[in-house]
Amino acid sequence: MGKKLTETHTINHYECDTTGKLTMPMLLNIVIKTSESQSEELGRGAKFVAKYGLTWVITRYDIQIKRLPQAQEKVFVTTEAVSYNKYFCYRNFWIHDENKEECVLIESTFALMNLENRKMGSVPEKLIAPFTSEKITKIKRGAKILPVTSHQFLNYRVRFSDIDGNQHVNNSRYFDWMLDVLGYDFLVEHEAESVAIKFDKEVEYGNEINSFWEFEQEEPMSSRHQIKVGDLLCAEANIKWRKN
Amino acid sequence: MGKKLTETHTINHYECDTTGKLTMPMLLNIVIKTSESQSEELGRGAKFVAKYGLTWVITRYDIQIKRLPQAQEKVFVTTEAVSYNKYFCYRNFWIHDENKEECVLIESTFALMNLENRKMGSVPEKLIAPFTSEKITKIKRGAKILPVTSHQFLNYRVRFSDIDGNQHVNNSRYFDWMLDVLGYDFLVEHEAESVAIKFDKEVEYGNEINSFWEFEQEEPMSSRHQIKVGDLLCAEANIKWRKN
Repeated sequence: MGKKLTETHTINHYECDTTGKLTMPMLLNIVIKTSESQSEELGRGAKFVAKYGLTWVITRYDIQIKRLPQAQEKVFVTTEAVSYNKYFCYRNFWIHDENKEECVLIESTFALMNLENRKMGSVPEKLIAPFTSEKITKIKRGAKILPVTSHQFLNYRVRFSDIDGNQHVNNSRYFDWMLDVLGYDFLVEHEAESVAIKFDKEVEYGNEINSFWEFEQEEPMSSRHQIKVGDLLCAEANIKWRKN
Repeated sequence: MGKKLTETHTINHYECDTTGKLTMPMLLNIVIKTSESQSEELGRGAKFVAKYGLTWVITRYDIQIKRLPQAQEKVFVTTEAVSYNKYFCYRNFWIHDENKEECVLIESTFALMNLENRKMGSVPEKLIAPFTSEKITKIKRGAKILPVTSHQFLNYRVRFSDIDGNQHVNNSRYFDWMLDVLGYDFLVEHEAESVAIKFDKEVEYGNEINSFWEFEQEEPMSSRHQIKVGDLLCAEANIKWRKN
């Protein structure tokens, strides 16, 4: 079994939206912090990974939300480096509340990107061994993400503040663009129940992105999203929604 | 003397920009958190203030930056409710590093906004008394903020994620718009040394803002900023810069 780590986190007001609930970008920031802590603890932090000329990138999240924690709540953030194959590492995250009730489960796929040519590299044994993850041969595909067939979109300019230490738009920021198109009234009245999101291409500073979307009113209410730079598909997501 | 409170905070990667330094929006989020903690401790939290039909808003920051803390650094965040008059409360914030060296000093002006008509109200004694701030009659004006005389601007759409619990754009977000216009290359090579920023009018969801700016190359290198919705001036700032 892969190593697990649990950290506590108190949800700050500034990590919440106007309704006082944790935002999707902050949800991801908080869980990623726990995986960084685990990597540091095992001597496999960003600096160690950089010695191989590599950096971690996230290629997919599958998120199940029972409820989003609220401002001032203390939560437990747990991560487990579950398994890996030649190119991908699979890591789970959980958020539990003070009563040990599960709030959120996130299954994630990590890959290693070569810092020079920005291409995916294979996973060195030396880098992954301390996590005691199960070695598998299968590539997990995850549920199919349905495409957007409509032509409605809003345009966003990548801001300096969207760029992270990897010199590209941080994965968490795609949610700003995907959610914002749904509008204030919808977003304060609904909560995401599940999200499948796949990151296909990096978005860089200077890019203008188009956030395409399509809405499915029929139960279960859902939305489909694509982030494109010109014709290039950079990320895609399907979200199931419930009314608050 | 006004009551002081110090909290520790470890700077997270997701609170930093691509260079690994704390961002201006996060700097403000982190210090405001400490003033919220102090208010809660003294039984004067947001809920208590809301009983008067009021909410705190920030009208001005004067920020002196010796250096911005970096990812993983542990810092001490201190706040003091210094003084107040009929309409304004003056609060200082400091960030010190582990060696007790001052990194940042922020002088701030708070006012109380009526939640119904969104107008400023006077400061009720019952609300301010526990902070033991000095009562003054003078209104602190702060250094004059020079206007922008050029016509260059970039346009930004207010995103859902910019809106806070007060149903307007959070004060910290104005920095995203003001800084972004200066461009990636400038921002990774320079650090703000001092900032004076004044918030004149609320910006709401649905607004499109124009971020005007003007740059002064002569030493000390500085930039002037205005955020406008149509002809309405919503915020203005002067920033002095130094090379990294």
